[in-house]
Amino acid sequence: MAEKITPRSIDYSQWYVDIVLNARLADYAPVKGCMVIRPRGYALWERIQSVLDGMFKETGHSNAYFPLLIPESYLRREAEHVEGFSPELAVVTHAGGEKLEEPLVVRPTSETIIWSMYKKWIQSYRDLPLLINQWANVLRWEKRTRLFLRTTEFLWQEGHTAHATAEEAREETLRILELYRRFAEEYLALPVLAGIKSDSEKFAGAVNTYAIEAMMQDRRALQAGTSHFLGQNFAKAFDVTFQTAAGGLDYVWASSWGVSTRLVGAIIMAHSDDKGLLVPPAIAPTEIVIIPIYKNETKERVLEYARTLHRSLRSSFRVELDDDDANSPGWKFSEWELLGVPLRVEIGPRDMDAGKVTIVRRDSGAKEAVAVEGAAQRAKELLAEIQKSMYAKAKDFRERNTFSVASYAELKKIFEGDGGFVEAGWCGSAECEAKIKEETKATIRVLPLSGGDKGAGTCILCGREAVVRGTFARAY
Amino acid sequence: MAEKITPRSIDYSQWYVDIVLNARLADYAPVKGCMVIRPRGYALWERIQSVLDGMFKETGHSNAYFPLLIPESYLRREAEHVEGFSPELAVVTHAGGEKLEEPLVVRPTSETIIWSMYKKWIQSYRDLPLLINQWANVLRWEKRTRLFLRTTEFLWQEGHTAHATAEEAREETLRILELYRRFAEEYLALPVLAGIKSDSEKFAGAVNTYAIEAMMQDRRALQAGTSHFLGQNFAKAFDVTFQTAAGGLDYVWASSWGVSTRLVGAIIMAHSDDKGLLVPPAIAPTEIVIIPIYKNETKERVLEYARTLHRSLRSSFRVELDDDDANSPGWKFSEWELLGVPLRVEIGPRDMDAGKVTIVRRDSGAKEAVAVEGAAQRAKELLAEIQKSMYAKAKDFRERNTFSVASYAELKKIFEGDGGFVEAGWCGSAECEAKIKEETKATIRVLPLSGGDKGAGTCILCGREAVVRGTFARAY
Repeated sequence: MAEKITPRSIDYSQWYVDIVLNARLADYAPVKGCMVIRPRGYALWERIQSVLDGMFKETGHSNAYFPLLIPESYLRREAEHVEGFSPELAVVTHAGGEKLEEPLVVRPTSETIIWSMYKKWIQSYRDLPLLINQWANVLRWEKRTRLFLRTTEFLWQEGHTAHATAEEAREETLRILELYRRFAEEYLALPVLAGIKSDSEKFAGAVNTYAIEAMMQDRRALQAGTSHFLGQNFAKAFDVTFQTAAGGLDYVWASSWGVSTRLVGAIIMAHSDDKGLLVPPAIAPTEIVIIPIYKNETKERVLEYARTLHRSLRSSFRVELDDDDANSPGWKFSEWELLGVPLRVEIGPRDMDAGKVTIVRRDSGAKEAVAVEGAAQRAKELLAEIQKSMYAKAKDFRERNTFSVASYAELKKIFEGDGGFVEAGWCGSAECEAKIKEETKATIRVLPLSGGDKGAGTCILCGREAVVRGTFARAY
Repeated sequence: MAEKITPRSIDYSQWYVDIVLNARLADYAPVKGCMVIRPRGYALWERIQSVLDGMFKETGHSNAYFPLLIPESYLRREAEHVEGFSPELAVVTHAGGEKLEEPLVVRPTSETIIWSMYKKWIQSYRDLPLLINQWANVLRWEKRTRLFLRTTEFLWQEGHTAHATAEEAREETLRILELYRRFAEEYLALPVLAGIKSDSEKFAGAVNTYAIEAMMQDRRALQAGTSHFLGQNFAKAFDVTFQTAAGGLDYVWASSWGVSTRLVGAIIMAHSDDKGLLVPPAIAPTEIVIIPIYKNETKERVLEYARTLHRSLRSSFRVELDDDDANSPGWKFSEWELLGVPLRVEIGPRDMDAGKVTIVRRDSGAKEAVAVEGAAQRAKELLAEIQKSMYAKAKDFRERNTFSVASYAELKKIFEGDGGFVEAGWCGSAECEAKIKEETKATIRVLPLSGGDKGAGTCILCGREAVVRGTFARAY
């Protein structure tokens, strides 16, 4: 199974694909741009779902399910929204053997269908806030696709909230941005910049888009989650008004936000190495694999010892025992390294006779022998260390590849070289932003949450006074 | 919120719709035949998912995700399959602003796309068994729809397994049938008949279809889950062969099986009453609701007492505290009865002063005062009693409405009257089956798992020797 993985230094893109395919995370589907998420990839998504779902519920959100198909006319009700999504739509024109009167689009996102329902459900301030999330598949017909990172169909969660005031909707937008940041950093070990998007990069139909952005090992940025303040745009498009506490009538205020199976791609690209996948323990479907090492004459005793350990670890860890006779221990070591399990516990006859086990870290390769009674405690410590160390390593990498520049020549030079995150002043004009993108393929990933900045210096391109310093990078 | 629910005795269909809408379980979507599953309905589905998913994983299954869109030609590869599903397909003809070369169908079920992938993944007996499940949405363009029970789009799980021998595939098919039976009876409190379908009722592409069938309160049958033995049909259609342990080459054997959001409809139809929904405790998103009763002067003390109880119950129960000031206790009692929460805990000043709480059963309305220290223990007992009693009541109802008949006149008379489950001999011919359906609208719901039966008597229609006794009923 452990086929060759192209080293990152030779071909980073191929390295990524090799890991996805060889670690059996996903496969290409027959329909162009679609993928099949295989059990080992889906297990990662299930862990992401489980943790995030808990965080959403703790903050008062409920799950619901809205239809896949949306009348085409609904998208047209919000002018920017339809303009943004039209080129990417898949359209159902026939169903039940007949041509449909009105074509139905497969949801690229669900604002329109959801706000058409909110019109029925919201009458009064007493119906607010309405805090709904949905786990669903969406379709966006992309021309250039890449497993997990950009696929025609993907899985995601989309939160859609309705509020009585602009302030509450904005608070919600930022609450979720912070929740995403915390999830990315604490679970995915992914340091992120949380900020606001420039107008050219915002969601079609939003007033403001906020995002978390992470640096991959090729120094490109990956947008890992977005949270939008929608103002009253969709409420106006779908005529959703409510009676205020004061007895007046107002349009409802909104937020929407999402993360997708793209996060699985982020885990791979940020952390893995030339041996294969490396998953942060907090999100790993399997934290520990136990591999017994034996010859015929020691088999039964070693297996029994391994099974006893397996049973005792199961209450506290997500742990697997690989007792498959068909593969050698050496083959198994490589295989489980490829699959990214953070800790390997080896048990040979000598370990057993000494009452010990050998624990090997996937991230550093460090080995240590520990007494079997202390194995659980030590594994717990090591998993915490790995989690911390993976975050620190990714953060250090980002810091070493983040540059503050004072001239456009400097900025260009960075993107002619290895790239990175480049902090530079920006005058706020779409023209300068577009010119920089055209010449360097770098876009403004985020602007600071604090907004404008008096001491931002001058615009890196035009030299006028800068309104803000932004972070430029090439992005996935 | 507690609008009028039509009594079952007046109009059973309207009663069902009234419950779904008033308990805010689902709503009609703008696209004909589609529904929106609202948070209270989705919470039921989440409980179903959570329990079943655990059962699938315990029996060695992993989750994965396959694409929504399937090339139309794939369906044609299995002759019966395409014939069965063609009339119900929704077809994407345009995407990304262009007409597609080959139309893509929105999956009505995923055998074809999955077996096209299994061809890539299965080479040897060592790759078997392959035990994969997926939680997904599917689309079947139905002419007559009903919230939860039959909708154009629905949510379900579909298991797709691959095996080296017919025997193993059959064992898997029956293992899942038994798992479904246990889930329906132990969690949904839904007594079911587990059996095999006649050829006319089997899944398009299966060798055999097995099902669990439950009786609703209007004495109709509801198919609550199916498990199919697919033989080598899909392996042959997609040319999926494997090297056997003996070194030969054989086509792979298969099963597939599923349950859907229809189960939410089954819960409503089997258990609810004229006051509203009634959910079996084991599947209830909320098992207990605490309702404090106070006047202005007692408010703070009662609320504090209620909050303390809420905190103490939270570790062992799914419990909510309704401390909304805007509604009266009486309004809340009706509302939570409508929502189907199995136990209500009332706390008034007098309860508090006596160190007690009043517990009210949703199923029977029985009330009892218990000491607050014993509330958790008593609630646990009562929830278990309600679960047991709901099952017993449903089973008793089914038994009272199951009839064994010896003549066709008797059978017809039952279906001209109130209906029920009717056990009768059948000669095995599709003609007799079709004639009975035409004249009575009753179909064979299941035949015994044991198969043929020497003592089955004579065919209820033609009088020839019966090969089996089947259960006839009108069905949803």
